[in-house]
Amino acid sequence: MALPPVPHEFASSLRTSRIEALSDAAFGIVMTILVLEIPVPEIDHPTALDIPRALIRLWPMFLGYFVSFIMLGMSWVAQHEQFHFVKRADQALLWMTMLFLMLIATVPFTTTLIGRYLEQQAVVVLYGAHLLAISLVHHATWRYATTNRRLVDPHMDLEDVEIHLRRSLITPVIYLVAIGLSFLSTVLSVVVYALVPLVYGMLPSIYARRKRSRPRES
Amino acid sequence: MALPPVPHEFASSLRTSRIEALSDAAFGIVMTILVLEIPVPEIDHPTALDIPRALIRLWPMFLGYFVSFIMLGMSWVAQHEQFHFVKRADQALLWMTMLFLMLIATVPFTTTLIGRYLEQQAVVVLYGAHLLAISLVHHATWRYATTNRRLVDPHMDLEDVEIHLRRSLITPVIYLVAIGLSFLSTVLSVVVYALVPLVYGMLPSIYARRKRSRPRES
Amino acid sequence: MALPPVPHEFASSLRTSRIEALSDAAFGIVMTILVLEIPVPEIDHPTALDIPRALIRLWPMFLGYFVSFIMLGMSWVAQHEQFHFVKRADQALLWMTMLFLMLIATVPFTTTLIGRYLEQQAVVVLYGAHLLAISLVHHATWRYATTNRRLVDPHMDLEDVEIHLRRSLITPVIYLVAIGLSFLSTVLSVVVYALVPLVYGMLPSIYARRKRSRPRES
Amino acid sequence: MALPPVPHEFASSLRTSRIEALSDAAFGIVMTILVLEIPVPEIDHPTALDIPRALIRLWPMFLGYFVSFIMLGMSWVAQHEQFHFVKRADQALLWMTMLFLMLIATVPFTTTLIGRYLEQQAVVVLYGAHLLAISLVHHATWRYATTNRRLVDPHMDLEDVEIHLRRSLITPVIYLVAIGLSFLSTVLSVVVYALVPLVYGMLPSIYARRKRSRPRES
Repeated sequence: MALPPVPHEFASSLRTSRIEALSDAAFGIVMTILVLEIPVPEIDHPTALDIPRALIRLWPMFLGYFVSFIMLGMSWVAQHEQFHFVKRADQALLWMTMLFLMLIATVPFTTTLIGRYLEQQAVVVLYGAHLLAISLVHHATWRYATTNRRLVDPHMDLEDVEIHLRRSLITPVIYLVAIGLSFLSTVLSVVVYALVPLVYGMLPSIYARRKRSRPRES
Repeated sequence: MALPPVPHEFASSLRTSRIEALSDAAFGIVMTILVLEIPVPEIDHPTALDIPRALIRLWPMFLGYFVSFIMLGMSWVAQHEQFHFVKRADQALLWMTMLFLMLIATVPFTTTLIGRYLEQQAVVVLYGAHLLAISLVHHATWRYATTNRRLVDPHMDLEDVEIHLRRSLITPVIYLVAIGLSFLSTVLSVVVYALVPLVYGMLPSIYARRKRSRPRES
Repeated sequence: MALPPVPHEFASSLRTSRIEALSDAAFGIVMTILVLEIPVPEIDHPTALDIPRALIRLWPMFLGYFVSFIMLGMSWVAQHEQFHFVKRADQALLWMTMLFLMLIATVPFTTTLIGRYLEQQAVVVLYGAHLLAISLVHHATWRYATTNRRLVDPHMDLEDVEIHLRRSLITPVIYLVAIGLSFLSTVLSVVVYALVPLVYGMLPSIYARRKRSRPRES
Repeated sequence: MALPPVPHEFASSLRTSRIEALSDAAFGIVMTILVLEIPVPEIDHPTALDIPRALIRLWPMFLGYFVSFIMLGMSWVAQHEQFHFVKRADQALLWMTMLFLMLIATVPFTTTLIGRYLEQQAVVVLYGAHLLAISLVHHATWRYATTNRRLVDPHMDLEDVEIHLRRSLITPVIYLVAIGLSFLSTVLSVVVYALVPLVYGMLPSIYARRKRSRPRES
């Protein structure tokens, strides 16, 4: 049987706006179902202090929730920044995005593990590896899309390309260090995981100030 | 290592329309998963009256659901009204929105607490503090975006700015009073929580009538 | 304290497209979380026939799922048809939509009741009342929006208004009859509930054929 | 009672963009709630190896998750490709899409079955039949929309129509074969289920290369 040829419109038929719409839905859902994994205390005839105490004992759950939520926020921002420059989609980009979303969608699983077993190094390493994988797929997508300006605006500033590639490598490097810190203290690791989005969120302002203070050379 | 400079397009790359899309997804999800926390009665071989009775015993759950749902509806409307005026996003606005969504996403947790322990003052105070925090972050976002017309339309009417700021303070004030009422009766507190969106929903009509009846001075 | 006047842009600030976006999210979620309520059989060391048998015993769950899913599909279509004509939103329309979405969001709860207690008349009546309420809110929204062409296109055909109002009354009438049938047989009731969307889906084709065969008088 | 005629705008009132929005929401949700079905291990006072071991024992769950996720990714892409060509919606297309979404929404149920009973042939056949049904509804929708170019662009290339119809038949054929393989090994079946999206994702590139290498005859 001869293989049917592919229609020539195929490559262009998947607009990047649709990938963004699917991502928005996925991020919105993951950010909101995260909380479903935190068990609401069930106590028969509680005294006035039973509920507050039970809630305080849940602190590792809330810590995990917080870390995952701001990591998701950062990833969502980073992905949108990416699609600001990516103008076309091809099969490879599509499946890299699917892999990215698959990793995002499994965040509630590892977050629940962290909430239950914060003191277990294996769990903290696994969670860190999860975050690391998300940031690496993000970096790989940048690299793929910008190589020879494959999928980005053909007039995209080469300096901008370089900046985004380098910046998208900062996150995985910090995650690697944080995973290493788990040999000292698992809570320290998780605190560093939490700092990444904050650093990432602050860097642009620092950059912007530096850039403004020197002449543009492009 | 010299820090890579930030690309100059960064600030403008996150369109407010995308923040709205993420918010729509998050609100839609929270409003629909709220109901998953209400346990469907499980009774083996029930008589004709067992199920109705079991449903009636769930009334605190339905009350909590109702209060949270209309509060979410009000917050969603308020946020959209806000983004009607906010024309640009910066990092601070973005992270204030993330904080806002984090508080929205945890509503199912405190709603379930209310449904289970409506008679516990600590729970009613916690739920009220949650609602208060949501309304305060909303107010802070208004203040940040409108100060020196930082992120809003440069021609936005100063009177309108003032009105929105003042109006977004009414809600937290009522929540504070309602929290205080929990010392008298927890159910009374929750009823007042429920009234806030109704009042908020009615105010515009009252305002509109007053405004129409006096000449515009802008 | 003098009440701050409402900004004059308020009424127009909530575009109907945003209400549609929230509704799309809510419908999409309810349609997909419905299935989470069907319990996946848990059997240790099952024989080849244990799982099929356990799945077959779940038939009332699947029936409830099917009825609710197509009812949701029909309601989603009906709401979009409505917003095809509704051009503006006001506070009343907004809160009618919130009430509509609240009823939609609680469908998984009553659907699970039906799946568990299909033979209980009280449950079948409650579910029917739920469906009836959804269709009545839909009708009320039509009536509100079209009275004096309040929120619809000022050139909307009066005949079309009349048709939509009448058609949106057919559904609640059938639901009422179906609730009555529960006195004969609860399964019969549910089957009639299931037929409503199919009838509603077929009517337009019948109408279209009739309309085409007579001259237009508008 | 004479039936009220249908308004003439009805057919055009449901824009395909809205169907796409509902689908995006549904796909995004199913892809993210899939993971909720994987039970997070609960172990009191675990040793360092207990959690890793418990996670490894969950491999059938992760396999099922992976297979379903990439199948959903493929279906989402296929549906968008379809709606790239489909320009109008009618009642039949709408209800075919509803049936499609109903099948998509139940994927978490059969995926959980696979995760729990990977060694049960009945379960693997049921899951395969589910995937087969999804691909057949997709094919039927193509056939319906393109027959006499019913709902597609009237200038759509007839060769393209033919290609899409044929290509949308490859998937169900492979699923049929994979179901048959379950008589040899259930794991083998599931591995072939997993390969389908990868093949489907690769075919376009192969086609594109072939097409470029021969002159266009249209």
